[in-house]
Amino acid sequence: MSRVCGVIAEYNPFHNGHLWQLKEIRRRLQPDVLVVVMSGNFVQRGEVALVDKWQRTKMALAAGVDLVVELPIYASVQPADIFALEALRLLQQLGVTDLVFGSENPELDYLTVARKIQKIPRQAAAFQDYRQTYATQLNQLLERYLGFQLTKPNQMLGLAYAQASLQLNYPLNFHPYLRTGLTEHNQVTLQGEISSATAIRTAIQAGRAYQETVPATSWALLEQKPHYYWSQFYPLLRYRLLTATAADLQAIYQMNEGLQYKLQQAAVSATDFTNFLYQIKSKRFTWARLRRLCLYTVLNLTTEQMQEMRMRAYLHVLGFNQVGQQHLHVLKSQNLTLPVITKVTQKLGNRQGIMARAIQADRLLLLGQAPEQNFGRRPLYQREV
Amino acid sequence: MSRVCGVIAEYNPFHNGHLWQLKEIRRRLQPDVLVVVMSGNFVQRGEVALVDKWQRTKMALAAGVDLVVELPIYASVQPADIFALEALRLLQQLGVTDLVFGSENPELDYLTVARKIQKIPRQAAAFQDYRQTYATQLNQLLERYLGFQLTKPNQMLGLAYAQASLQLNYPLNFHPYLRTGLTEHNQVTLQGEISSATAIRTAIQAGRAYQETVPATSWALLEQKPHYYWSQFYPLLRYRLLTATAADLQAIYQMNEGLQYKLQQAAVSATDFTNFLYQIKSKRFTWARLRRLCLYTVLNLTTEQMQEMRMRAYLHVLGFNQVGQQHLHVLKSQNLTLPVITKVTQKLGNRQGIMARAIQADRLLLLGQAPEQNFGRRPLYQREV
Repeated sequence: MSRVCGVIAEYNPFHNGHLWQLKEIRRRLQPDVLVVVMSGNFVQRGEVALVDKWQRTKMALAAGVDLVVELPIYASVQPADIFALEALRLLQQLGVTDLVFGSENPELDYLTVARKIQKIPRQAAAFQDYRQTYATQLNQLLERYLGFQLTKPNQMLGLAYAQASLQLNYPLNFHPYLRTGLTEHNQVTLQGEISSATAIRTAIQAGRAYQETVPATSWALLEQKPHYYWSQFYPLLRYRLLTATAADLQAIYQMNEGLQYKLQQAAVSATDFTNFLYQIKSKRFTWARLRRLCLYTVLNLTTEQMQEMRMRAYLHVLGFNQVGQQHLHVLKSQNLTLPVITKVTQKLGNRQGIMARAIQADRLLLLGQAPEQNFGRRPLYQREV
Repeated sequence: MSRVCGVIAEYNPFHNGHLWQLKEIRRRLQPDVLVVVMSGNFVQRGEVALVDKWQRTKMALAAGVDLVVELPIYASVQPADIFALEALRLLQQLGVTDLVFGSENPELDYLTVARKIQKIPRQAAAFQDYRQTYATQLNQLLERYLGFQLTKPNQMLGLAYAQASLQLNYPLNFHPYLRTGLTEHNQVTLQGEISSATAIRTAIQAGRAYQETVPATSWALLEQKPHYYWSQFYPLLRYRLLTATAADLQAIYQMNEGLQYKLQQAAVSATDFTNFLYQIKSKRFTWARLRRLCLYTVLNLTTEQMQEMRMRAYLHVLGFNQVGQQHLHVLKSQNLTLPVITKVTQKLGNRQGIMARAIQADRLLLLGQAPEQNFGRRPLYQREV
């Protein structure tokens, strides 16, 4: 049986840390196929990705990924548990046997922790304290029942993957890799050849040098415009909040606990996104949760639509090389339950089409001068290098 | 009994032609009070007014108007028949006895024509030809039954006033005044001291000289920013069309005959408003009708909301002098059926308040750098000059 390694990534943008991880996978696991499920144009921290999904696919293919499949917005812009569950559903369809992910403590056995959490009484795990974030309450629970906490973002995500694996009854080999070279410092500021994606985006936006932190292909693609930032889209969010009815906003995914009034009020006076976020921030919600809410709002994504998208998943192929294409060919000959999309037809995009809302969401980028993101686009093909 | 003269105006902007009309009213009719019902921030041709309602109120007061009351969006952005009907409802409440309006042929007896039209069989007057505009079909009817046509915009409007007067059973003296000095040419290009508002707006936008066409107060106010144009708001309209669902758009006022699909499709490719309008234009709809539809859409005004606004009318006072204030005082002591608003309280503006949707519509201007348009604003007071 072949070994298919899978990575769940945003590549926002693809940098030297990502390249190191891919090389390590080749070295340690010798996979037959290396598959990446990559967030499309919208990422988990509630932002439009810096460059579009096609540019980021090019970066991944140039670094040796065999197959890139899109993680659509209904999955990519979600709290960790839903993000992980939906990503693993796609990995399962793609025949992935081994999951590699970055972790602050790779010695942790995530699957064992997840099994222990399953045994915690249900009522204890229903978080009702409106003054604290989900993560805080989860950790209080872990501390109480298991005697430790998982406070780092990638610990939380690793645990979510393990929980999803159990939930889907999907036996998957877990390979947490230490995120190399990342210190407290270069998470926020560039330093040497390895820096966090956040630090690199900040440098790019500020016009500072970042070339040594990314592979040559990323560099060449990142030097092209357009780039996308919340600052560009905030006037649209503000407009939407100022003109929407309470009922319109009430229907938006995750718009609960009266948040719509808070958002509408902040929009009256806040003329930039940073100021807006500060006005709506409370202890109850993380910055990421609020940015995601802002993204759902500007994209007009309702609870009903998000549910429906999750019910009608698909595999949208963004790119491959010969190995990836061959793997896809084999998958299609088996009994896949999800449709494989290599060409976005009008039928997929029309009102009843399974991609309708995802295509509509991507249209936001047109307002930032993006080229068409779906219709007529075929998977990118990477020749042997 | 006192003579109260009324004018229905947009003053977009207030120019020498308007000044001439007011002087003629004083000279010919010697009114005790001169009342103007003025469109708020949105005008009948489906645009945001060049400058806001407060600036335009200042212009009118400086020219000697005694009382300025707002014609809210549910009335100001409508086809001629509804525009006229709703404006006359306000004039009736304001105790107006004499209506003065511009006309290309003041010798026409509009009330007599309106009475004749009332006698035309109902089924003949139900226009069903989807290839032609309302105006074209109305004129075919007039030609057939009365033997003449009313093709000029102000003839149509005058007739609409007369029809509204009959419909409301509101006996009103009609004074059509010849619009002086206007030729075919200066409708579109500035020429001398009298030019059309359209020509003046075009000149202002193009940065050409226009000072001699407007009174000094208008000039001083027009030299200040911000100004509002569709070009500023088109990105918001485009965003809205690209992210709204078919159901969202179907609910918009006047969005019928499948227009939402046409608008959505045009928004994908059209990057400016002019190009967008050309893409959606057909023989069936006039430019004004389509611009109004665009305005309803960008303001997210549904059929239900427009109906509700019409059912809950009010008199929002924008400005007065001592005479106007005194007149308002007398009116309030009588049994007015509509509330008089001289201070926009939070209660009027909250979700159930009668001004809620009108205030929300005005918020569009905040995105064009306008100051707050309603809360905390009191009527402007013009001292004797």
